[in-house]
Amino acid sequence: MELQVFGVGSATPQRNRNPSAFLLSVDNEYVLIDCGEGTQFRFLEHKVKTSRIKTICISHLHGDHYFGLVGLLSTFSLHHRTEPLTLIGPEALLEIIHLQLFHSGSTLSFKLEFIATQNVHVSKIFENAALEIYTFPLIHRIPTTGFKLIQKASKRKIIKDILPVNFPIPYIKMLKEGKDVKDELTGEIFLNSTYTKEGNKAKVFSYCSDTAFNKDILPVIFESDLLYHEATFTDVDSKRAENTFHSTARQAALIAKEANVSKLLLGHFSSRYGNELTHLSEALEVFSNTLIAEQYILYTV
Amino acid sequence: MELQVFGVGSATPQRNRNPSAFLLSVDNEYVLIDCGEGTQFRFLEHKVKTSRIKTICISHLHGDHYFGLVGLLSTFSLHHRTEPLTLIGPEALLEIIHLQLFHSGSTLSFKLEFIATQNVHVSKIFENAALEIYTFPLIHRIPTTGFKLIQKASKRKIIKDILPVNFPIPYIKMLKEGKDVKDELTGEIFLNSTYTKEGNKAKVFSYCSDTAFNKDILPVIFESDLLYHEATFTDVDSKRAENTFHSTARQAALIAKEANVSKLLLGHFSSRYGNELTHLSEALEVFSNTLIAEQYILYTV
Repeated sequence: MELQVFGVGSATPQRNRNPSAFLLSVDNEYVLIDCGEGTQFRFLEHKVKTSRIKTICISHLHGDHYFGLVGLLSTFSLHHRTEPLTLIGPEALLEIIHLQLFHSGSTLSFKLEFIATQNVHVSKIFENAALEIYTFPLIHRIPTTGFKLIQKASKRKIIKDILPVNFPIPYIKMLKEGKDVKDELTGEIFLNSTYTKEGNKAKVFSYCSDTAFNKDILPVIFESDLLYHEATFTDVDSKRAENTFHSTARQAALIAKEANVSKLLLGHFSSRYGNELTHLSEALEVFSNTLIAEQYILYTV
Repeated sequence: MELQVFGVGSATPQRNRNPSAFLLSVDNEYVLIDCGEGTQFRFLEHKVKTSRIKTICISHLHGDHYFGLVGLLSTFSLHHRTEPLTLIGPEALLEIIHLQLFHSGSTLSFKLEFIATQNVHVSKIFENAALEIYTFPLIHRIPTTGFKLIQKASKRKIIKDILPVNFPIPYIKMLKEGKDVKDELTGEIFLNSTYTKEGNKAKVFSYCSDTAFNKDILPVIFESDLLYHEATFTDVDSKRAENTFHSTARQAALIAKEANVSKLLLGHFSSRYGNELTHLSEALEVFSNTLIAEQYILYTV
């Protein structure tokens, strides 16, 4: 999986930090996670093939996480999209979308398959051939969920070079599924362990924005390959973080450390900070594999 | 008055054309007319003092004309605005705003004085010391209104150089109001025609987006100093203009000519055109004082 970051800002608009939006590519399909105002224009600017977006996850109904959504859906319709779109988010999101579509006298050109989140318990909310999505409760001023996205392990890979030429396709399928093959004509045995190697391992991306420091999420995000965690504030504003149900960079790093994740990506920076050097240094004191999310950069999961 | 253009695009997002937003400055206050998605970020970029926005007019509820509004209002609150804001637009706009504010668990920090438009007849909808705003029906797929904004004529101006020194302030006020003054002590007469000259004339800006070709608006916009009229299409797409209740550049110019306006500004260009050369040449065949609206440029009314 690859994650492209489109916004590292928080609620107050900032010149160099857009509101939240994250594009996860999974086997050539995109999952869009949050969609702050103006996201579709940034997609245009960065030549994102938005037709590849098959799933959208919205964490909560603060504007900096979804005010770009209805515009994006409308644009899909203007482009005559017909492929269904799965939308995962708080229940009221659907009402908001429908109200705006109704008063614009328009309907969507595609099927919107809406899945409402709850923020009471962890649940698997979506699954297709390549991907599983779990939601889990975060602690914020309004109902907010985190997302865990798992790219499934791929099947075993054939070692093509050593297979006989014209080896039958049904036999290849059996090998990929981990079975040994007995050739019905010759009786020859093709051992799975000889002719295949392990496929790609499952990969896990966890997304936590916005949230107060919350150790309850540790079991869910445990050993994620990549954790995005909001880091709105630095230590000096830890009281403010507490009052506004946000986290400091250090708290995000504590979560990353205790969850034993491979890599931590920090974002959702308050407009009060001109740069993220303090966020980085405070987080690094706790968890060494910390990165400051940078807009438009691709991060491998 | 001065008009700054923030978007010349239409519904489908375009890289170099933003959705509609127009900032009219009247005596150091701003009226924002339409507010497409991302407008507040463009204000940031261009260092607009958004606290000066006292009035917002929304023409209709197609997303490219208002999807930036709720974000802007939310940002006013984040900046702890206390000054009331007048919002003029279709009735459902208030419901849409309230629904989004409700689900974000927030309230506005300032009073929103909402004035609902109707699109049945011309009406004066707003007036303060400097400004009058009229709405008038346009013809579009959903209820849409145009706006006529009149900067009132200023009072007569004193010719200071020829007045006696220490001329009493109440007398100055009388002169400004067009009266002659008789000095109570000396009996001397100060003729208004001698000591004052004419103040600034009233200025009129008319705004028509989006609309089919519609001569019914002529009496309202007659002799405007500046007319903004949508010109989504060119002649070759005139059938499309008709079907979508939009105008061609030539039709906009016909309106400008018959309304005998001083200057015509064209915008709301469809994404199908890479530039506006054809719009301009077709409009110029009808009305010579035509300009293509350019983003971030200031136009004097």
